[in-house]
Amino acid sequence: MSRFLNQQFCDIVPYTPGEQPQNMEYIKLNTNENPYAPSPQVSKVITTTEVDNLRLYSDPSVKKLITQIANLNNVENENVIVGNGSDEILAFAFLAFGGDKKMTFADITYGFYKVYAKLYGLKTNIIPLTEKLDINTDDYLTSGENIVIANPNAPTGKTISPEQIETVLKAHPNDIVLVDEAYVDFGGISVVPFIKKYDNLLVVQTFSKSRSLAGARLGFGIASKEIIQDLNKIKFSFNPYNINRLSMLAGQESIKDVKYFDQTIKEIISTRDYVSGELTTLGFTVLESSANFIFVKTDKIQGERYYKKLKEKGILVRWFDQDRIKDFVRVTVGSNPQMDVFIQKTKEILKEG
Amino acid sequence: MSRFLNQQFCDIVPYTPGEQPQNMEYIKLNTNENPYAPSPQVSKVITTTEVDNLRLYSDPSVKKLITQIANLNNVENENVIVGNGSDEILAFAFLAFGGDKKMTFADITYGFYKVYAKLYGLKTNIIPLTEKLDINTDDYLTSGENIVIANPNAPTGKTISPEQIETVLKAHPNDIVLVDEAYVDFGGISVVPFIKKYDNLLVVQTFSKSRSLAGARLGFGIASKEIIQDLNKIKFSFNPYNINRLSMLAGQESIKDVKYFDQTIKEIISTRDYVSGELTTLGFTVLESSANFIFVKTDKIQGERYYKKLKEKGILVRWFDQDRIKDFVRVTVGSNPQMDVFIQKTKEILKEG
Repeated sequence: MSRFLNQQFCDIVPYTPGEQPQNMEYIKLNTNENPYAPSPQVSKVITTTEVDNLRLYSDPSVKKLITQIANLNNVENENVIVGNGSDEILAFAFLAFGGDKKMTFADITYGFYKVYAKLYGLKTNIIPLTEKLDINTDDYLTSGENIVIANPNAPTGKTISPEQIETVLKAHPNDIVLVDEAYVDFGGISVVPFIKKYDNLLVVQTFSKSRSLAGARLGFGIASKEIIQDLNKIKFSFNPYNINRLSMLAGQESIKDVKYFDQTIKEIISTRDYVSGELTTLGFTVLESSANFIFVKTDKIQGERYYKKLKEKGILVRWFDQDRIKDFVRVTVGSNPQMDVFIQKTKEILKEG
Repeated sequence: MSRFLNQQFCDIVPYTPGEQPQNMEYIKLNTNENPYAPSPQVSKVITTTEVDNLRLYSDPSVKKLITQIANLNNVENENVIVGNGSDEILAFAFLAFGGDKKMTFADITYGFYKVYAKLYGLKTNIIPLTEKLDINTDDYLTSGENIVIANPNAPTGKTISPEQIETVLKAHPNDIVLVDEAYVDFGGISVVPFIKKYDNLLVVQTFSKSRSLAGARLGFGIASKEIIQDLNKIKFSFNPYNINRLSMLAGQESIKDVKYFDQTIKEIISTRDYVSGELTTLGFTVLESSANFIFVKTDKIQGERYYKKLKEKGILVRWFDQDRIKDFVRVTVGSNPQMDVFIQKTKEILKEG
């Protein structure tokens, strides 16, 4: 820390991303990356001409990509904003709508929410998940607080219904309800259609998981035109050219290739069901997942020890040093061959004790 | 505006980027883009394999690119942070070091400084340039204020010496002195070597202009390890994966190709001198530029009218509706053929009156 840093930031604890070894020696099941490459159309459009065009700024209005996202989601262009990853949209939203209101979210959810709150000096109301690690929306009905719900939730993978979210929307006519749908394509039900009915809803999604574009950094928000205007005000006061040219192209091609998207999603869901079954047979508790990861524990080995043993054997999963979930590890659903190795190594570990 | 927006942001006036027509019909001399493509090595490394690897997150520590930037600038890796464009680094710096201190900068400079100040609720001290549109560093010696100096300055293109900046650094032992060197490669002298002597200095540079990578969004900051730690604290509390995979590769290759860099810089400086000479012959006042643009005016036609006439003739330049510089237009130095058209159209416009 320098002596120049604003006091307010001295005790910030930044978000800790999952390990990102750059040498690729591990089977990486720790950051919910997609095991499949992006649509083959993506590499076809990233031509030498497009690379040469990097000399030009990108379109700050992100018009082409936004048009496609809007069409895909049956909304208008004015209902969409694209971010440098969905993290950027989340950050913009916390800044724009924070102020004096509490930001309310679960004790066990995406770890970044509390970091954003701290970054922008916002008060929080942290609501424990139920004993079964579910979100009980009845706990989120106190009006006068902004709400952030990840659905499916991370790292549990559990989902709640649009009806449950609707009760929250109704209870908060004058507050923002942010629904983070980063994992929705793997089995959740999106509440995007609600934006026509509820002007307090902001839905955030990402290209990182279901569209295999984590490294391109593309996320988006869908909401009322007014909310999107607000977020654009922040964007254009922060970094108007927030999306690079090649990522825009990648996103556009990804949306066009509907068949590939459907196929890889189906594959991942099928693998998830297979692995969940195998682990259950081995005596694991596997939370029912609507995401591209599973959250698992067993009485036979502690979470941290299991994580470390897997790492020794060349497999990275994520373990959280956090109350209530220390027994668990979060395992990204990889390809079938990757998951076969994972199952095999898990069997070895259980045998070794 | 939605009714949810934090009051503080209601009257923000975001930065207005230069027009970015996506159809490429214009000769674009309005956003200081480089007329030359990035190094041909860049497109060679953006292979199908790398595009397929977009499924993986990028390295949040940006290690490879940072190592190259550090080597190029003769500093340690710990002295460097990379941003999604230099705008992101500027935004992080305003947030990190703002607090109760005034941010002090020129009345005529990069228009984004005042936007960042407003975004983060910072007080400002706006110091007029001299009558000749120079920065007089004697005006920047009041300790207790953070200083932001663009050098070369924009949109004037004028530069000040490292010695002048050193007087500012000495006068501000307990304040941040941010030197924005976005255009330094075109004829300025960088103060990066000073970071070993002054722990209050933050230098910001970009790949957008001299490295022809505006559309890749890459900028960086160089400073003491402590200042970089602070900026990383903000980055990892905002968007840890702020740089996408392909832009990292592009930046790395750009730095490797020293010959191409030197050659294109030389070309632009030569074109700048040629165009400056031609315009002077036509009766223009041309400020002495150390950047990849020139700032010009003439008694023969008003700035706004000249800008509009050029646009009608298919050439975009930038005119600022701002006191003291309304007579001027800012013209990016394009390729020789582009600038020949620009000169020819200018002659036509002057004839038309």
